[in-house]
Amino acid sequence: MTKRTTVEAAELMLGHEIKALDHGFVIPIDYMGSDNDVVQAARTSFGPSGRPIHDDRGLIRYLLRHRHTTPFEMLEVKFLCRMPIFVARQWIRHRTANVNEMSLRYAEPLEFFYVPDPATVSVQSKDNKQGRGEPLTGEAAAIVLDMFTDGQHEDMARYRRLADEFGLAKELARAVLPVSLYTQWVWKIDLHNLMHFLGLRLDAHAQYEIRVFAEAMAQFVRAWAPLSWEAFEDYRLHAASLSRQELHALRLMLRRGYVDPASAALAAGLRARELDEFCSKVAKCLSSDPEGLPPLSLDIEGESPGTRGTP
Amino acid sequence: MTKRTTVEAAELMLGHEIKALDHGFVIPIDYMGSDNDVVQAARTSFGPSGRPIHDDRGLIRYLLRHRHTTPFEMLEVKFLCRMPIFVARQWIRHRTANVNEMSLRYAEPLEFFYVPDPATVSVQSKDNKQGRGEPLTGEAAAIVLDMFTDGQHEDMARYRRLADEFGLAKELARAVLPVSLYTQWVWKIDLHNLMHFLGLRLDAHAQYEIRVFAEAMAQFVRAWAPLSWEAFEDYRLHAASLSRQELHALRLMLRRGYVDPASAALAAGLRARELDEFCSKVAKCLSSDPEGLPPLSLDIEGESPGTRGTP
Amino acid sequence: MTKRTTVEAAELMLGHEIKALDHGFVIPIDYMGSDNDVVQAARTSFGPSGRPIHDDRGLIRYLLRHRHTTPFEMLEVKFLCRMPIFVARQWIRHRTANVNEMSLRYAEPLEFFYVPDPATVSVQSKDNKQGRGEPLTGEAAAIVLDMFTDGQHEDMARYRRLADEFGLAKELARAVLPVSLYTQWVWKIDLHNLMHFLGLRLDAHAQYEIRVFAEAMAQFVRAWAPLSWEAFEDYRLHAASLSRQELHALRLMLRRGYVDPASAALAAGLRARELDEFCSKVAKCLSSDPEGLPPLSLDIEGESPGTRGTP
Amino acid sequence: MTKRTTVEAAELMLGHEIKALDHGFVIPIDYMGSDNDVVQAARTSFGPSGRPIHDDRGLIRYLLRHRHTTPFEMLEVKFLCRMPIFVARQWIRHRTANVNEMSLRYAEPLEFFYVPDPATVSVQSKDNKQGRGEPLTGEAAAIVLDMFTDGQHEDMARYRRLADEFGLAKELARAVLPVSLYTQWVWKIDLHNLMHFLGLRLDAHAQYEIRVFAEAMAQFVRAWAPLSWEAFEDYRLHAASLSRQELHALRLMLRRGYVDPASAALAAGLRARELDEFCSKVAKCLSSDPEGLPPLSLDIEGESPGTRGTP
Repeated sequence: MTKRTTVEAAELMLGHEIKALDHGFVIPIDYMGSDNDVVQAARTSFGPSGRPIHDDRGLIRYLLRHRHTTPFEMLEVKFLCRMPIFVARQWIRHRTANVNEMSLRYAEPLEFFYVPDPATVSVQSKDNKQGRGEPLTGEAAAIVLDMFTDGQHEDMARYRRLADEFGLAKELARAVLPVSLYTQWVWKIDLHNLMHFLGLRLDAHAQYEIRVFAEAMAQFVRAWAPLSWEAFEDYRLHAASLSRQELHALRLMLRRGYVDPASAALAAGLRARELDEFCSKVAKCLSSDPEGLPPLSLDIEGESPGTRGTP
Repeated sequence: MTKRTTVEAAELMLGHEIKALDHGFVIPIDYMGSDNDVVQAARTSFGPSGRPIHDDRGLIRYLLRHRHTTPFEMLEVKFLCRMPIFVARQWIRHRTANVNEMSLRYAEPLEFFYVPDPATVSVQSKDNKQGRGEPLTGEAAAIVLDMFTDGQHEDMARYRRLADEFGLAKELARAVLPVSLYTQWVWKIDLHNLMHFLGLRLDAHAQYEIRVFAEAMAQFVRAWAPLSWEAFEDYRLHAASLSRQELHALRLMLRRGYVDPASAALAAGLRARELDEFCSKVAKCLSSDPEGLPPLSLDIEGESPGTRGTP
Repeated sequence: MTKRTTVEAAELMLGHEIKALDHGFVIPIDYMGSDNDVVQAARTSFGPSGRPIHDDRGLIRYLLRHRHTTPFEMLEVKFLCRMPIFVARQWIRHRTANVNEMSLRYAEPLEFFYVPDPATVSVQSKDNKQGRGEPLTGEAAAIVLDMFTDGQHEDMARYRRLADEFGLAKELARAVLPVSLYTQWVWKIDLHNLMHFLGLRLDAHAQYEIRVFAEAMAQFVRAWAPLSWEAFEDYRLHAASLSRQELHALRLMLRRGYVDPASAALAAGLRARELDEFCSKVAKCLSSDPEGLPPLSLDIEGESPGTRGTP
Repeated sequence: MTKRTTVEAAELMLGHEIKALDHGFVIPIDYMGSDNDVVQAARTSFGPSGRPIHDDRGLIRYLLRHRHTTPFEMLEVKFLCRMPIFVARQWIRHRTANVNEMSLRYAEPLEFFYVPDPATVSVQSKDNKQGRGEPLTGEAAAIVLDMFTDGQHEDMARYRRLADEFGLAKELARAVLPVSLYTQWVWKIDLHNLMHFLGLRLDAHAQYEIRVFAEAMAQFVRAWAPLSWEAFEDYRLHAASLSRQELHALRLMLRRGYVDPASAALAAGLRARELDEFCSKVAKCLSSDPEGLPPLSLDIEGESPGTRGTP
């Protein structure tokens, strides 16, 4: 029994693995607070007389839209995660989390290595220096995967011989292991910083192997803090930022009869990569599916006197 | 003499007061790095073969546009600042800076209090719960200012009597002083976090009294790291973020013949405050002055083979 | 119902005010984790085969003693606190917490001001530039307290007239209020950083008015994470650090027949303030009350062969 | 030319490699501030009338001794470092630095791997679960080193074939590389957090391979901020912390005639590991070499009126 805020949908997920990659997982193991704590924290700031919005969903959306991010720091979540070392190395760059990772100075290595799914074994992208292009065809993919597993077996055999036959110090023997080895950690973070992490790591430019972990954590957030998550989707994930020059290009489209985004961008002074980016944003905007939008009926400040007295 | 990166325009400002409010100031006292250090840090990440952009200005703009913010953390600046306590209390909420503030446990209080300029003595805003409306007229403003100075004199007289006549411990006597008293501190921050601070505190919704300090610091950044500042203006300060629903409304304007933003917003499901915000963004976009835009000729990746070999 | 770790003694305190000063309080409103989560986090690092200590209490003590502080970051606690502004200004210097404070841009000020208890109305210390000396005698104390309350009434009357009669913007009117005014906030922090805060703010050199808030929070920690708290008391609060020179002075006492700490310190090269500090440490050590020590029966690693094979 | 604080001894080291391990290095590339900035920051806090100590060295020592750590945050330093990945993974756990690491999503891997010096190829420690015991003898060491280099060549050959023959995306191909591969980064940190890092990583319990990098950075700090460094050595590196129970044991030695530390510890309730630790501290204390101590003539507050007027 607890007097603390409890979220039923989150409780159902506690202790259950969300699988990620071939041997990885994210297990939600604890959480603190709920959407309601975002609201309570904001009301501490605004005071009873000063809060700008009356209903909880509207307030949460207002906060996120206007970058009042501190109330989202009032929720905390803790995951047990297992991931390849090269993923852990990207992940740890987010410095606002608390982490306890297994240490190969003390512990035996896990006997798991990452081997990509054939569908994701892709060549280097030609136009994107950090990304992947087309997947390899069957035979080439098979050779690549064999090279992965062969290397992993050889490296692990080397480790075992160093540790077991020579008794080499663990902290030194582990140097022969590849970054495809799985590691695991307890990772704890507040909701604001988690959403910041997810904004970057759910992005199409993030490496596929970390994106699947971001998606696993997003599943939990959606269940745990659904109003915050919805706002995050609308104002961050599916939003677009237009630069000063792009706003100018948009003006040319709205008022000067430019129909082609590329021409408008060119007239607004955009060139090369930025011109392409503007065209993508417009294309994404034009293809936006109105059916996919959630119903909006929020933020009707002061219009329903009946709710006024019930903060 | 130093081997460190030196920025002449920044050197000229070192040690010179930038005034803010009646008795406040910002004095740049030290800096580390320049635009070039942003570039060098990014090139450490990308490696010589991997950098996506060839010229420095283009690279800096690329980084800021795509939220690769860590290279901007490589520059550091230190200011000596004097501001009213109520401004210091907003300012200190930015936790990523290093601060040494004068302490009234040890030091005598400064003999300066903030008295607003008559032009800024305004009533509470009716439609914005956190802001100011119209300025007060002459006589009312005069009474208000008298009330400020009277209170300050009385509070300070009380402090002096407590400290001098009764010998009361400073840490206790200072409790009678008002938050309009000036304090001062040394404040050091990296460029990324400073730009984040400025993005929030240069905003029209920030309180006027902290905005003038933000503007003072912005003056220094403009001189010290002009390419970063330009990118920050284009992609943050003068940019607009459109939510998922706003992108839908924009689509209705671009493709479905809606001319009135309010109608488009309504059709896209936006209501009340969000509807108004969309209309403001469109209005701001339509009034954007193309003459004010800096010339853009960047990012011409791969087009000038002559520069390719000179990273 | 929750699957999360629940600590009964902590539950009993949730939602209950711990009073501090005349109108202040600390209310524990949420927590995450328990002593057991420190242990689990550490075992994640050490792995099943690698953990250095077998029982939980011994492991927690080992971690704290050897500055393995990250497992203590895995617990989180949230308080609602009300304190005078001058206390809030010291408190907020700890940057590792999450905070939402009431804002006088939006909210009406609380109608509470700090008036010290007569027993704590003391003169400035002569030998300690930041502290208090003797309390004032009856009449002087009475005058001082009257000056506090008079000033508070006048400042608040001024605020009310500015806000109500002139309609001055709240964010401006509040500038006339003194730093003895109470404010309140939600404050959330992890256990490691809370203990760091408490180590500094429970210290005899901390201002009395913040120490009472530190003591209020310490009460909660003692109930919530008793093993961590005990270790913190033994290895931080009631521990002493000896410098290189002090270790030399101690050697002279232990081996060279010096009985007087001052002579040993002098012979070891300590002077003035450092000499006094050494003498205080020795005096504190000599007066340490062995009866006050908790029974110690921990850390018996390797003594019971029966447990050796069962890590 | 610069108006900024310049430290000649630091300038001499800028741009010069300090070697670490077989292919690693630390290159100081920029710094901000000097010992004098610690003093200036502290004086901002204390105010001209309130500073507790008159000479700079004494003030710096006072600050460090009493954990007034914020003035040490006012200095900043930037290093370019090259280290094996497994060292980078320990290093990055210190979250208070700014980092830009080369990314194998974009860049070609360096062609350097760590191969330990034969003298450091040691077996797992028996009594210390995280450390090393005796070095291996000649032939065994030679086999071990061959296994290191063989694995490295094979893994790199695998990488090259994946990247060059199959054109596999770099971000995927790098998964076959071992954690003995060198990486490099720009790393920037303030002096307080650097000293905290060094306190942990110069410790005898830190892994040898990161300790050499800590020592390289310590070399720079010693030249750059000699007074801060000296204080850090005296009050942190060569200091000892005694727990509540250890203070009791010490009392038994000083006043009750206990000569043997183990007996005193036992009588004070210390057992097993803690008993051993107490004995080590006493032994270290007794063997402290007074000749090694720097001359102390500081902190003579108020005794030399001639320096009083020159804060």
